[in-house]
Amino acid sequence: MKTVSAVTDLRRERQTLSGTLGLVPTMGALHEGHLSLVRRAKAENDHVGVSIFVNPAQFNPNEDLSKYPHSLERDLQLLDNEGVHLVWTPTPDIVYPPGYQTYISVEEVARPLEGERRPGHFRGVATVVAKLFNAFTPHRAYFGQKDAQQVVVVKRMAADLNFPLEIVVCPTVREPDGLAMSSRNVYLNPQERQTAAVLYRALCAAKHAYDSGERRGDSLRAIMASAIAVEPLAQIDYVSAADPDTLAELQTVERGALLSLAVRIGNTRLIDNFLLTETPNSKLQTPNLRFGL
Amino acid sequence: MKTVSAVTDLRRERQTLSGTLGLVPTMGALHEGHLSLVRRAKAENDHVGVSIFVNPAQFNPNEDLSKYPHSLERDLQLLDNEGVHLVWTPTPDIVYPPGYQTYISVEEVARPLEGERRPGHFRGVATVVAKLFNAFTPHRAYFGQKDAQQVVVVKRMAADLNFPLEIVVCPTVREPDGLAMSSRNVYLNPQERQTAAVLYRALCAAKHAYDSGERRGDSLRAIMASAIAVEPLAQIDYVSAADPDTLAELQTVERGALLSLAVRIGNTRLIDNFLLTETPNSKLQTPNLRFGL
Repeated sequence: MKTVSAVTDLRRERQTLSGTLGLVPTMGALHEGHLSLVRRAKAENDHVGVSIFVNPAQFNPNEDLSKYPHSLERDLQLLDNEGVHLVWTPTPDIVYPPGYQTYISVEEVARPLEGERRPGHFRGVATVVAKLFNAFTPHRAYFGQKDAQQVVVVKRMAADLNFPLEIVVCPTVREPDGLAMSSRNVYLNPQERQTAAVLYRALCAAKHAYDSGERRGDSLRAIMASAIAVEPLAQIDYVSAADPDTLAELQTVERGALLSLAVRIGNTRLIDNFLLTETPNSKLQTPNLRFGL
Repeated sequence: MKTVSAVTDLRRERQTLSGTLGLVPTMGALHEGHLSLVRRAKAENDHVGVSIFVNPAQFNPNEDLSKYPHSLERDLQLLDNEGVHLVWTPTPDIVYPPGYQTYISVEEVARPLEGERRPGHFRGVATVVAKLFNAFTPHRAYFGQKDAQQVVVVKRMAADLNFPLEIVVCPTVREPDGLAMSSRNVYLNPQERQTAAVLYRALCAAKHAYDSGERRGDSLRAIMASAIAVEPLAQIDYVSAADPDTLAELQTVERGALLSLAVRIGNTRLIDNFLLTETPNSKLQTPNLRFGL
């Protein structure tokens, strides 16, 4: 495994890798969720590249950039164990050198949910991801469904800008109690950690209702909100049942939905989601007129 | 020569081209300026790709998008004669399909001069150029010095976003009287056409003063303005003596300058520029402290 910092070193090492390359962008503090992306990339490509970069452009001034967890040595060991070929660990000055002034904005899909609560977040994400695509020139890039809106924004950006690669989305990896793996979980004290499984329980409750035929967006959102309200340590930031492509809140679920939520547990803000797809059963019950005509 | 419209066709034809590719982005209405880019690209690469696309995103509502000159058949014949391998002639719907929502903004260098007079212009330019880079994946891309600020914006964007290619800037091609070649020159009636050479004369006058030792930005700007003022058909939009990298107006020229101007001749707005570089003589007279320490 080669670990490089300078862009010129990255390009030189990249050129030695023939065949297909899978890229896994990360902010380090790796957990099983990241490793599942690496394994999928390894299975589908001749080589795997990983970036480790805590991107200042996607944190706003009130956020946890400075205390975001770091564990570079451990991260590199984990990636080496997985058979990763190339790791880029740039400093902020390498990614945003003096005079840097180019930013990529995705519009509609970056506005609600995380975009509304974290101004500038997705501009930072889209920009750094485009840079990673150009720096690694991968054939496929791997992202976790855990960050659902990020997936929508990155897919939109890659399609809109004609990036010549495939975006592969991998399932959220969970702890035994259902808590989605996240680098931010280390912020939780034991009591908060126990409470944190409420995000998963709320999503399960809404999915159960959906599977039983509930199609009203308000009801699905209310079910998630009620499930969280029972936990005194948990404070809802948002609950959402939205169109999976546009992220517009749904009145009625007709062709699948993204159930998502953001919850504060103490000082830690956690997000999670379920992507509900049309079931054969729901198709029979509510024929999709958009495709039915 | 292959001419394609769909992105999938472009990608398929691109893949058949081995070795290096030079890209020449154009809006059609080709003239000797464009052909000089094509010839340079041909000399420096195994294959040459050209795009012909009048990009709506870089025209604002008051501008001449609908009457921008078209001559596709003639353009394709000219490119075929030059030995171009691949031409992309997409429709606006192919470049900006329904749901399109991603834009690239370059900040400081896109603000003054053309950016100030044509709001949104460089956002449109940066976005479509990034798409062309991703669609063609060229090794080199060729731009004319005629559009000096576009060159600065595109270079900044390519560097900032780590595009894996080289930007090659080619000299402005001029008519015998000095008028810079431009697709918009066809708008000029015979009297206006005669007047239009005043842009070149103004630039020559300022360069002459510079070569004679004039280093005050105000004086260089005033010389250009005076040269244009003598032409009753010509109306100044701006005259500029700016830093070639930041495009900030200069009080004193210390390490070269971009002299540029925009002038209305009747209803037609023309631009032109000279890039003044440090001469050995000027170095002796005004040692550059930034490098001299």
